[in-house]
Amino acid sequence: MTENIKLFEDYLKKELKYNKPESLYDPVKYILESGGKRLRPLITLYISELFNGKKIVALPAAAALEIFHNFTLAHDDIMDNSSIRRGKKTINAKWDDNTGILSGDVMLIISYEILNQYEDSKYILFSKKLTEISRLVCEGQQADMDFASKNDITENEYFEMIKNKTAVLIGCSFMFGGIAAETNTSNTDLLYRIGLNLGIAFQLEDDLLDCFGDQEKFGKKIGGDILEKKKTLLYLFTYSKLESEKKLEFENIFNSNEIEESEKINSIKSFYETSGALEYLKNKVKVYFNEAEMLIDKLEFDHDTKKKLNLFCKTLLNREI
Amino acid sequence: MTENIKLFEDYLKKELKYNKPESLYDPVKYILESGGKRLRPLITLYISELFNGKKIVALPAAAALEIFHNFTLAHDDIMDNSSIRRGKKTINAKWDDNTGILSGDVMLIISYEILNQYEDSKYILFSKKLTEISRLVCEGQQADMDFASKNDITENEYFEMIKNKTAVLIGCSFMFGGIAAETNTSNTDLLYRIGLNLGIAFQLEDDLLDCFGDQEKFGKKIGGDILEKKKTLLYLFTYSKLESEKKLEFENIFNSNEIEESEKINSIKSFYETSGALEYLKNKVKVYFNEAEMLIDKLEFDHDTKKKLNLFCKTLLNREI
Repeated sequence: MTENIKLFEDYLKKELKYNKPESLYDPVKYILESGGKRLRPLITLYISELFNGKKIVALPAAAALEIFHNFTLAHDDIMDNSSIRRGKKTINAKWDDNTGILSGDVMLIISYEILNQYEDSKYILFSKKLTEISRLVCEGQQADMDFASKNDITENEYFEMIKNKTAVLIGCSFMFGGIAAETNTSNTDLLYRIGLNLGIAFQLEDDLLDCFGDQEKFGKKIGGDILEKKKTLLYLFTYSKLESEKKLEFENIFNSNEIEESEKINSIKSFYETSGALEYLKNKVKVYFNEAEMLIDKLEFDHDTKKKLNLFCKTLLNREI
Repeated sequence: MTENIKLFEDYLKKELKYNKPESLYDPVKYILESGGKRLRPLITLYISELFNGKKIVALPAAAALEIFHNFTLAHDDIMDNSSIRRGKKTINAKWDDNTGILSGDVMLIISYEILNQYEDSKYILFSKKLTEISRLVCEGQQADMDFASKNDITENEYFEMIKNKTAVLIGCSFMFGGIAAETNTSNTDLLYRIGLNLGIAFQLEDDLLDCFGDQEKFGKKIGGDILEKKKTLLYLFTYSKLESEKKLEFENIFNSNEIEESEKINSIKSFYETSGALEYLKNKVKVYFNEAEMLIDKLEFDHDTKKKLNLFCKTLLNREI
């Protein structure tokens, strides 16, 4: 894993062309060099190796997805008015919103441009899939923003939102590894669906860890979602289970700006526990992970390699990466 | 021309898929249905016909460019804080900046998606060219924004900026018509360069008309660029020609917010005239137009059709479209 990270970082440093003006490309360099887990490219590189592909062939596809991911971060940070990411200032905070818009735009374009390096058949597969998931990511981001002012969000709508906003790009990371390694269409389709299910499990686990995780391991402040009034599945499940009086109390606490932070977090957490939401989410994580496992089993590949992939997915989910 | 506009409007209405959420797609529909000259798709359709292509084949490429153009408008309007375009509210004014960002993003993606309709060889040509010019358009937009706080802009930098911000997309509109009609590479390359030169001439003429045009014909308020303190070539040329004392006076008037509007416009216009900038620009328009004519002559095509194309380009430049 560490070796692949190094390989990827070197690739980004050496291969990316930054033209002029610097005012456009400095923010791009800044966000791309600000690290992050590099989850998506690591998946692509790992899958490609697993299917006996050459790393050098998978690198541009891996880079395209990481740059695409950073395009979404640059624009999301403006929309959410965020000023800190990965412990550093966001582009909109360090420069301004306009800089965030335009450097985001150019990152989306660069993610297509990198794919030019492939021969025609791969270029077509990669670029069309990128287009497909990009559109879904926009739809997911819009749905997420809409949720802030909506109270009647169904569980289906919630799953559709996280699938589009987060999981399709994870699906794409798996699939791109398979395309780079030239495995067959049945396998690349399965890889996409494996990533999709894992991505949903991943997001649900993120919501869990945000509330109930260990601050040191999680790396972010516990209870952040509650303070940001994010309507995660924990919220939606709890809200749907409460009787009218308790519901009002829950809503009042959730929407209050006056209750002291740790008191608010603890109070909402205990709602999430007693409603059964905590258990419900833990179970959902398992359901989606099991679905991914079942799909792994369907891959046309030898038993030992499938076991390896299964372990890799478990590791991803436990965030030991 | 009118027939092609109708054809294009029908295509946009019938063929564009608007998914959910509506909060993402309503602004897209709004801006795409708010009209405009449809200059870029009209060029693509005209060129395709000229090269004996079928209109139905050129339509998706034409739409991709128009939608791409509207993506740039949606984002530019946020960056420039504009509230009116084509006599209607901009997306950022009617909704908000976040809506403008995300609906802009999805339009950029849709412009790629539309190209999926082509067979592989055309898809590759179209999508790679779209990527190439998209990046240049971002660079041009950034350069344009940078100019606002810069005083030492050279003529070369100015031409590079308008080439990227405006002309490459016009070049692309010509080229896409040729690709749709399956003319040879030498012709499509020439078509791109014809559009590039014409696009520059077009932008210079726009700057001229903004200052010295007939308000009714131009359709916009005369002197708008002066009031917005836009450093067009008229400004740059005049600035470079003035002696230090006059330069200071010119700068003071140009940057003043206190002088009455029509007085300011008249005063700056007279600077532009006496410096020779007006004549200089008129001549530059001719130079770029002549270059386009010379390139038209190089096309592998019969004499009569070249004459037709020449006339079409003249019509474009005279804005009788």
